[in-house]
Amino acid sequence: MRSRQALASEFIGTAMLLATVVGSGIMGERLAGGNVAVALLANTLATGAALIALIATFGPRSGAHFNPLVTLIEVAFKRLGWATACAYLVAQVLGAIAGVMAAHTMFELPLLMQSTHVRTGPHQWWSEAVASFGLLTVILNVAKTRPDFVPVAVGSYITAAYWFTASTSFANPAVTIARSLTDTFSGIQPADVPGFLLAQFAGAALAFALFTWLETDHSKQHENHV
Amino acid sequence: MRSRQALASEFIGTAMLLATVVGSGIMGERLAGGNVAVALLANTLATGAALIALIATFGPRSGAHFNPLVTLIEVAFKRLGWATACAYLVAQVLGAIAGVMAAHTMFELPLLMQSTHVRTGPHQWWSEAVASFGLLTVILNVAKTRPDFVPVAVGSYITAAYWFTASTSFANPAVTIARSLTDTFSGIQPADVPGFLLAQFAGAALAFALFTWLETDHSKQHENHV
Amino acid sequence: MRSRQALASEFIGTAMLLATVVGSGIMGERLAGGNVAVALLANTLATGAALIALIATFGPRSGAHFNPLVTLIEVAFKRLGWATACAYLVAQVLGAIAGVMAAHTMFELPLLMQSTHVRTGPHQWWSEAVASFGLLTVILNVAKTRPDFVPVAVGSYITAAYWFTASTSFANPAVTIARSLTDTFSGIQPADVPGFLLAQFAGAALAFALFTWLETDHSKQHENHV
Amino acid sequence: MRSRQALASEFIGTAMLLATVVGSGIMGERLAGGNVAVALLANTLATGAALIALIATFGPRSGAHFNPLVTLIEVAFKRLGWATACAYLVAQVLGAIAGVMAAHTMFELPLLMQSTHVRTGPHQWWSEAVASFGLLTVILNVAKTRPDFVPVAVGSYITAAYWFTASTSFANPAVTIARSLTDTFSGIQPADVPGFLLAQFAGAALAFALFTWLETDHSKQHENHV
Repeated sequence: MRSRQALASEFIGTAMLLATVVGSGIMGERLAGGNVAVALLANTLATGAALIALIATFGPRSGAHFNPLVTLIEVAFKRLGWATACAYLVAQVLGAIAGVMAAHTMFELPLLMQSTHVRTGPHQWWSEAVASFGLLTVILNVAKTRPDFVPVAVGSYITAAYWFTASTSFANPAVTIARSLTDTFSGIQPADVPGFLLAQFAGAALAFALFTWLETDHSKQHENHV
Repeated sequence: MRSRQALASEFIGTAMLLATVVGSGIMGERLAGGNVAVALLANTLATGAALIALIATFGPRSGAHFNPLVTLIEVAFKRLGWATACAYLVAQVLGAIAGVMAAHTMFELPLLMQSTHVRTGPHQWWSEAVASFGLLTVILNVAKTRPDFVPVAVGSYITAAYWFTASTSFANPAVTIARSLTDTFSGIQPADVPGFLLAQFAGAALAFALFTWLETDHSKQHENHV
Repeated sequence: MRSRQALASEFIGTAMLLATVVGSGIMGERLAGGNVAVALLANTLATGAALIALIATFGPRSGAHFNPLVTLIEVAFKRLGWATACAYLVAQVLGAIAGVMAAHTMFELPLLMQSTHVRTGPHQWWSEAVASFGLLTVILNVAKTRPDFVPVAVGSYITAAYWFTASTSFANPAVTIARSLTDTFSGIQPADVPGFLLAQFAGAALAFALFTWLETDHSKQHENHV
Repeated sequence: MRSRQALASEFIGTAMLLATVVGSGIMGERLAGGNVAVALLANTLATGAALIALIATFGPRSGAHFNPLVTLIEVAFKRLGWATACAYLVAQVLGAIAGVMAAHTMFELPLLMQSTHVRTGPHQWWSEAVASFGLLTVILNVAKTRPDFVPVAVGSYITAAYWFTASTSFANPAVTIARSLTDTFSGIQPADVPGFLLAQFAGAALAFALFTWLETDHSKQHENHV
């Protein structure tokens, strides 16, 4: 069932997501006259809204993962084979990089750059772990009980997470890698990428464990007490 | 039916709500360059969006109260026993405090602080009473006629209430207690907590009375006139 | 079927709407440091969000008109009798004034004031006519084809209309009367109220005519050509 | 089935869309005190919200195209005849111009002006191609799998696209032509219109090709492998 169409959907969807993240960051910073909060408000509004539109658009074709954490958890639940998952991961990373290139072209910048934006240290890693834990917890639970609401739930969650984490919530390894290739508002210097990825995987693993516990234990209790 | 899973959901949901309220307040204030309106816009956007995502996520597991006022009204309607309710209240308060600690850690602050933010006086108490009355009126009515819309209705209501009340609408005793433990944008000094709690209980009691009257009387009229 | 509960719902809903409009205007202006656009953004966000929550809350009880234009059009369609309609209008105007008083009390202002905010002239009247025409067109069409979407459609429409009209879109006679009683951001001086009301009725009448034509003619064409 | 009612709906809907785009641009610029980001935030919020309300309002009557790109793709899919399509295009362009006139009248400006806002060059054209490709991809896919979500998906997409493209995402030939007639925030000088139109058609053609491939190929693969 997973097909070239699904891979194309992951590629295009992730590309449009990154074009939004990077492009709206550049636009926000250029227009905000030095007020970083206003720039981040624009960046937030654009990213949250884009997620609503893109997940609704590509959800029926590929699941609209756009995020290796989601794909790997689908593998862990045995809802996706490793072969398909690897193809998804490649499509996501290449799509993310293509999205950065698309944004740079719109704003008259080099196709790719090397970011010099420092984002490191335990506080940033903790932020990414919390952000990723929250994102996956939202996705796993809402996808199970109310799949039609996933676009709005994810868009809303990321809108919040841009502001409540010190890292502005990357929460996505493909996004993180691609954002190391832009030296603009939303960039992260390449040296800081591994720390972010590790924190993201840790947060996602915790969300996986929580969801499994919430699901498993509940049925036991159902047998014992009802 | 109420289970360890429900309590965990209340704990985690309230923790993420407080991480959002406190974290986005810190981020907003740090970035806004002294424009308090811009900081509060960021705080508002994040909190409203988080409520949409979190209520959709944990609603099917615990009812997604995240608020002692909601739990106590469920008891008043005899839809929740006292034992479960007490466990809910503990989970909410502990979760709220954990959320403040999570936010402080992200922003390199002490785990807990004592707030020095003065919020007191009849105008503030009236604000909290109105805010709590409105919140519970929205929840009780929408939960009855259109439960799927509760996440959006509550997120929208709080978005409005952050701006139309002079207190920025705490409207939640667990949130109020936890916010006394942060000396940042969203804090409230401990001495001012009891006044807020009393006002919140009064507002919730009024919402309970209104809803009961709206429900009871209507059926009588139905018998008499139709 | 229309009952004391419906009237109470109109009263409370309109009161909360006005508390939002006036309260968030005061809060926005106080915090925005002189940037009127930021104050109006806060006012807009709060009002649009409040409409989503309040219409969802009171829609099943009273239709959630909160607006004499809506009530009068229901009379024109013979879906509401004159007696009920008059009671609705009284509840809306009294509720609106109560909402202004609630907001003033929150922000430590006199219970009622006389506005000195000049809003007059053909450009303002044209703005109100367009705003009211649009509002009623949205309500009539969406209520017919997709009633569950009315809260979001109306909240979204008013969010837009605050910005695309020169009058910030009152589009509601009860709101207009009540806003003459606050000398704050959202006020309108009493002398300018009649012009606004006339323009609003004209816009609503046009929306009524358009909707009637859209409905009637279509069925004729259906008979002739299909 | 396409009728005078549908044409009136396209005319009025496109007029209200343009009144929103142009009017909120003027209001944003006048109030923002020189902060272009704040002005564009207001413009974005208004436009995205208007699209949600207007598509929900007129969708059942005309399909709520408001955009020649959408109409032409309906022709390409043979869901609309050329005669109706031409009438739609005329209604959209005239409606768009009427909307600009309505906005100018609200803000005490001449009925129509000639824009002097330069928007040209390969980066702008690339922006418009990306914006139009994205818009049509969202519309085609969401309209197929989840038509009720189209208003929210389109409103969200345009909210994002105002910020992630360097051109602020016109993505609509009728809108582009009409915006050449306003010398305000949202204008485009007439000489730059043809470049925008060509880029928009190219982006829409690509979206059409992608959607066709996504649809066609998938069924083939279904026959071969499942």
